Formats: sequence, C-alpha cells, structure tokens
Amino acid sequence: MRMYDLIYTKKLGGALSQEQIAFWVKGAADGSIADEQSASLLMAICWRGMTTEETLALTLAMRDSGIRMDLSAVPGIKVDKHSTGGVGDKTTLILGPIVAACGVPCPMFSGRGLGHTGGTIDKFAAIPGLKVELTDAEFIRSLRETRFANSAPTGDIAPADKKLYALRDVTATVESIPLITASIMSKKLAGGADALVLDVKCGATAFMKTLDDARTLAQSMVDVGTAHGMQIRALITRMDAPLGWAIGNALEVMESVEILRGGHAESELAQMSFRLAAEMLIMGGAARTLPEAQAKVQASLQDGSALETLRRFVALNGGDATALDDFSRLPQPGQTVEVRADRDGYISAIDGRALGLLAMDLGAGRKDRHDVLDLGVGIRVQVAVGQKVAKGDPLFQVLAKANQSIKPELYLSTLVWAQDAPASSPWLLDTIGC
Amino acid sequence: MRMYDLIYTKKLGGALSQEQIAFWVKGAADGSIADEQSASLLMAICWRGMTTEETLALTLAMRDSGIRMDLSAVPGIKVDKHSTGGVGDKTTLILGPIVAACGVPCPMFSGRGLGHTGGTIDKFAAIPGLKVELTDAEFIRSLRETRFANSAPTGDIAPADKKLYALRDVTATVESIPLITASIMSKKLAGGADALVLDVKCGATAFMKTLDDARTLAQSMVDVGTAHGMQIRALITRMDAPLGWAIGNALEVMESVEILRGGHAESELAQMSFRLAAEMLIMGGAARTLPEAQAKVQASLQDGSALETLRRFVALNGGDATALDDFSRLPQPGQTVEVRADRDGYISAIDGRALGLLAMDLGAGRKDRHDVLDLGVGIRVQVAVGQKVAKGDPLFQVLAKANQSIKPELYLSTLVWAQDAPASSPWLLDTIGC
Repeated sequence: MRMYDLIYTKKLGGALSQEQIAFWVKGAADGSIADEQSASLLMAICWRGMTTEETLALTLAMRDSGIRMDLSAVPGIKVDKHSTGGVGDKTTLILGPIVAACGVPCPMFSGRGLGHTGGTIDKFAAIPGLKVELTDAEFIRSLRETRFANSAPTGDIAPADKKLYALRDVTATVESIPLITASIMSKKLAGGADALVLDVKCGATAFMKTLDDARTLAQSMVDVGTAHGMQIRALITRMDAPLGWAIGNALEVMESVEILRGGHAESELAQMSFRLAAEMLIMGGAARTLPEAQAKVQASLQDGSALETLRRFVALNGGDATALDDFSRLPQPGQTVEVRADRDGYISAIDGRALGLLAMDLGAGRKDRHDVLDLGVGIRVQVAVGQKVAKGDPLFQVLAKANQSIKPELYLSTLVWAQDAPASSPWLLDTIGC
Repeated sequence: MRMYDLIYTKKLGGALSQEQIAFWVKGAADGSIADEQSASLLMAICWRGMTTEETLALTLAMRDSGIRMDLSAVPGIKVDKHSTGGVGDKTTLILGPIVAACGVPCPMFSGRGLGHTGGTIDKFAAIPGLKVELTDAEFIRSLRETRFANSAPTGDIAPADKKLYALRDVTATVESIPLITASIMSKKLAGGADALVLDVKCGATAFMKTLDDARTLAQSMVDVGTAHGMQIRALITRMDAPLGWAIGNALEVMESVEILRGGHAESELAQMSFRLAAEMLIMGGAARTLPEAQAKVQASLQDGSALETLRRFVALNGGDATALDDFSRLPQPGQTVEVRADRDGYISAIDGRALGLLAMDLGAGRKDRHDVLDLGVGIRVQVAVGQKVAKGDPLFQVLAKANQSIKPELYLSTLVWAQDAPASSPWLLDTIGC
C-alpha cells in the first residue's frame, strides 16, 4: 500500500477503504508515514470530505491506536458529555456533580485550554490541591465512590489522535467535520462511557458557523456513536457571547458553585447545564421523561446533594473542599479594575472570542501550549445581551495580576450597542436523538 | 508572518499576497517552514487554485530562489521550447538543430525521464561521449558556436522549484495548473531565453485530460511569460499514442536523425516538430509569416544544414558525431523480439502510457530516480492509429537486454482494435498567441 495512492484518491474525491485508513493512522502514529504526506491528505479531506463509512473507519483506527478504559468495575450506565468548546463554558463543573448526585456515574476526560477557549482541567486546577491528572485506578475509585470522575486524558488514550491533532493544528486542517468527529469520538469511545451527550456550539465564533454545519457535525458524531452501540444525543446551542458571568479559572469555579447552590437559576448557563444533565439522566436510566429528569436535577440542587457530590469529589482527589464554601481560599487576583459604560444604550452583542483572548492575555489562558496560567485572574462580565445600560454603569470587572496595565477600551470594543432593545434569541437551536 | 495564516487563507479560497508567497517560497527552500505546512498549502492550492497575480508571484519567487542565466554574450533573440511531456516525444532533438540552422539561437535545458515518460537528456546521452551536463561556460560556448545548446539544468536554477517539486511528487499535488505554470515558467525565465514556444499535451494519458484544462494551462503560462516581457506562444497537441515509431533512447536518436535527413516527412512527429520550429523562427525574427518560416524549415532539411548543426553540437560537446551517420555506433540491444498481430482489423488506439511503462521495464526509463538506464533498449512501434492490420503482420519490435523475457501479450494489450477504419483526428487541437 502506498500513501501516495491514498492522497491521490482523496484529492480526486474518492473514498478510502477501511484498510487504507488503518494503514494511514498506524503510519502517522508510528512515524513510518511522513508528516508532509499526512498533511496533504488532511487538507484533501477538508476539501473532499469523508463518507460515513470512512469517518467510522478513521474513528476506529484512532481509538485502537491506544488503550480503552475498562469501567466495568463501576455499576450502572456510565454517561459522558462533550462540548465543542466556548468561552466561559463551565457546564462540566455543574452537570457532573448533578448527574452523579442523581445516581448516574459520570466519567469525564477533559482538556487544557489553548487560545481563546479555556479548558475544564484548568478550571478544576483552580481548586487548591485537587489532582487533575488521575491514574486509571484513581479515576475508577473516584467514579465508584462519588459517581463523578474528571481527569486529563492519559497519553495512552488515542495517541494517533494526539499526533494527527498536532499536525492539524499547524496545517489549518482542524475545521473539517469528519476529522472533528473522529478526533472527538475516538477519545470518547476509548474513554469507556456507555452514553454521551454532545453540546455542539454554533455561531460566528464557533467552529461551526451555521446551523447546517452544526447539524451535520452533530449528526456525524451521533452516527459514529450509534454505529458502536453507544447511546448518543446532541444539543445544538448558540454561541457568541460568553457563557455565564465568569471567564477565568477560579471565577468559573465560583460561578459553578453558585449555580449548584441554586443561584443564577434563570441564566443561560444554568438552563443549558440543567438540560444537558437531564438528557444524561434519561440515557443513564434515572428518568424516563424530560420533565421527570428536570425535576430530579432541581431536587439535587435543593437538597444540596449535587454540591455535596462536588465536595466529596474534590476531597477524595486531594483538593481543599472548604474552598467551595469559602471562595477566599481560591486563587485571588493582584488587582481589580472596573470598566464602566461610556454611553447609554442596549447591548446587542458581546464578542465572546475577543473576551476570551483578553482573558488569555491576563494569564487565564494559554497563547502557547507551554504557558503557565494565573488561576486567579479573569473577567467578570456584568452585562448580558439585551440589557439596557446607562453611561457609568459597571460592565466588566477585570481581575488581573498586580502590575498588569489594563486598557478599558479593549473591553469596551467587545460590545455591540443598539438604540433599541434587540430581539432575544433562544440558546437551544436544535436537538438530535433527544 | 505566520505560515498558518497563509494555509488558512487559501483553504477558505482567498488570495495570498506577493509578500506572503515570497515568504513561503523562501521558507520552503531554506527549511524554515516545515514540509507538512508546505504540503497542506500545496493541496489547498490544488483545491482553490490561484489568481493570475498569485501565479505570477509564485513564478517570480521560485525564479529568484536561484541564479538567472545571462545569455547576453550570444547575439540574437534566443528562443526555447517546452513540452509538457509525452511518450516518444523527441521534438527537441529535431527542432533544436533546425531552428539553430535557420539562424535563431536555441538555448534549452532538459530533464531526465521518470516513470512512463522519457527525458530529452537521456536521449542525448545515447550519443556516445556527448556531455549532457554542461557548465554555464560550455552552454554559452555551444550556443555561440552552433546556435544550439542543450543541458541538464544546474542545481542553481530555481532551487525552490526543485524542493517544492520533490514535495509535490510525494503528496499528489503535481497536477495543479498554477503549480505547473510556476514550476515550468520559473525555470524558463531563469534560463535566459527571450522567447518560448509551449507544446501543451492534451489527452487521456497527459496531465491535462480535457481541451479546456489544456487551454487553461497554456493561457496561464502565456500570461506569466507575457507579464515578464517574454515572447510566448502555445500549441495544444493531442497525446494518446506514442509520438513517432521510436520509444527508447538510442532509437529516438535514430528517428530524429532520419527526420533531419528528410525521412518520415508526413509523420505526426515531423509535422509537429516543423510547426514548433516555424513558430520559433517567427519569434526569433527569422521569418515573418508561417509559410515563410515553414519554407526555411524545409530548406534546412534539404540543404543538410540542420543535420550538420546537430553534428557540430555533438562534436563540440565531446560526442561521437559519426554515430549520427552510422547507427551501429549507438548503444545496441542484446536481443530483438517481434510481436505480430493475433487478428485482423483496424488499430483504433495505442496506449502510449502503457508502452512507456513497458519501455521503462525494459530499462529505457526509470522507476526510481536512481535507476541506471540501458540506452540501447526500447520499442519500435510498427503500426499507427487508423492502420489496417492482417493477422501475422509485425506490430512491435522489442529491443531488450540479452536475458530479458518478453511477454508479447503485454504489448498486444496496448492496442485497441476496431472492425472499421476509425475517424482520423488532427494532432493540433488549438494554438494560443500564434
């Protein structure tokens, strides 16, 4: 088999066989196929796409490049969640403890942040002492004892994806529905969960710019999951503004805990987390209908069991659980700068990506893989889309390092103003398999 | 400037600036840009194409990666020819001496063969003693003294093209009109000629499968040449069957000499060579009209001056010019095998590519860049498309090494038969700029 023939076939729009895809993935991972050949095939895939069969074969080949987690020691239907990523998205910190408190085991592997988006692992790392890289044994123990486990994935899960992702990252081939599908689903299948809910973001600053593209990606992942006997559902959610008021790691822990305490119940973040949790409860067998599942979610907040689950998870894995009740124990910023409105009007849009980059510049995110974060810095977003604002009203609180100079105009430029109240639009755009 | 941004721009179908293209070509040549990034950009160019401005900028950046030949010491308008390549194409050996004999200097750089196509350099190498890699000084001396010079290009001509071509070769990105244009034209512009005639092949086994594609490529090269003040014309010629009766290096020298002696005057090969030569004479200022140019071509054959020019070129550059008059001094095969017709009928097509690969297997061509050729082996094609054949008639003479086993059925399978005489089609499909 010659790699050249695979590239040429795909360049002309043909389909690759399962054997050809397995040959490529193995060769890319073990170095026997040159990176320039993989790069040109990746771009040809962005161009020509892949059939469902090809996407399935690519997912399997990547899954089988490493180990598969065996969670059979944990009873019950294990349910995971995956989000395609957004600024301020801390739904894992909220729904994981809720789902676990409702009796459904929730094993989750999360990533670190890069660029404008934060990573769930970095958010958990803001809790003092919490170990965010668990061994397989620690992961399974956490899942057995608290029904919740969250860890950075080990290098043994889908190493071929790691290799190909690094190549995609420098060759502008990240944005491709079959490649995104295989990358996500190979890791999810290797992670050992029985069911998965997907949160596919859609919007100007998301990977998927249009509802059509988001539906296609969601359906592609649902198809691959279903083909492997995984229960799988997808929500397609709007992404433009940041999700919730907190951007930055310790801040996002605070906002998550506030929601688990019953706060901000009407916010988009809370509503989205509750809905995702409800879908997980249905797949996990803890509820038969959406209203029943939603009632269980609310009960876990009201009786404190969700927050208690988070406390137990943190304590079990070396973290300071008292920090969840006393936020002064979380990492703190060196200074706080208020940014106030320079005019009257309605906020018609907030550029989440721009705020994500500003938070990155503060030290909450990474420009480069090797950057070290400041877990205490971030941005409190004090306005929401549709809100009426008067000149002088607080818009942002910038939590920065002590000696950092803050330019309020950069924060103001993330807002779009309108004379009249903008039409409100729903956060939930579509569902697949629900 | 970041290479990632160039790839991303082209992936989305945008145009690159002159500065971006220069940055890429320089980085690809000096190794500061990773091969995987160049490979993904190359595939994105195959996908999205390039504007005329981009193709021009790419050509210039590749030309300027190396030296430019200075031919100002040679008086007159220097005229070159380029063919996109075909099996049995030995037009350079015929038209070079003709054009030079008619008073127009003809500086030519030629390549070695790879795969099913032969290379002009290998054909010249079949003349005993002839030096085919000339120094710049030897090249200019040959051009001054005989008005004809042919050499393998030095590594100093467009080294960035050499680097990118090697990458295209393994990443299935050879077939792209802007990339082909820039590769050819960068070398032609660096080669120092003032005028250029292009022979763009079109057919099922050529790079350009359709007349539209061939026209687009020809126009693209004409545009780039014109933008640089080069006189440039293109013929679009049909390619399917081999050109002429000879495939193999010594054989092709024999056929060329026979045409220079006035033989095979009605053959497609002769007609094509004469027409290309006539266009070159017009551009070189030796004739004003096509009939005038064609008359000069014929005169150079009848008075023996074209063949005499070839003899002088060979002798000047270390070759045995008597081999042009005594073919027994050319490399000889170890055995000759006749392949005869196994049926009656008309020949409706001959697969030139398949015969090229059979000649390669005999040792006349290279499977791999490092293969050593047997210059005496090859195939005499004894039938032509449209010819009526009776069972037992000679079809091919296979000239092989002494111990090679020849399978006649492989040769027979290169022919397509018909009951009735097939319609004849012209070899000249279109001209551009003529």
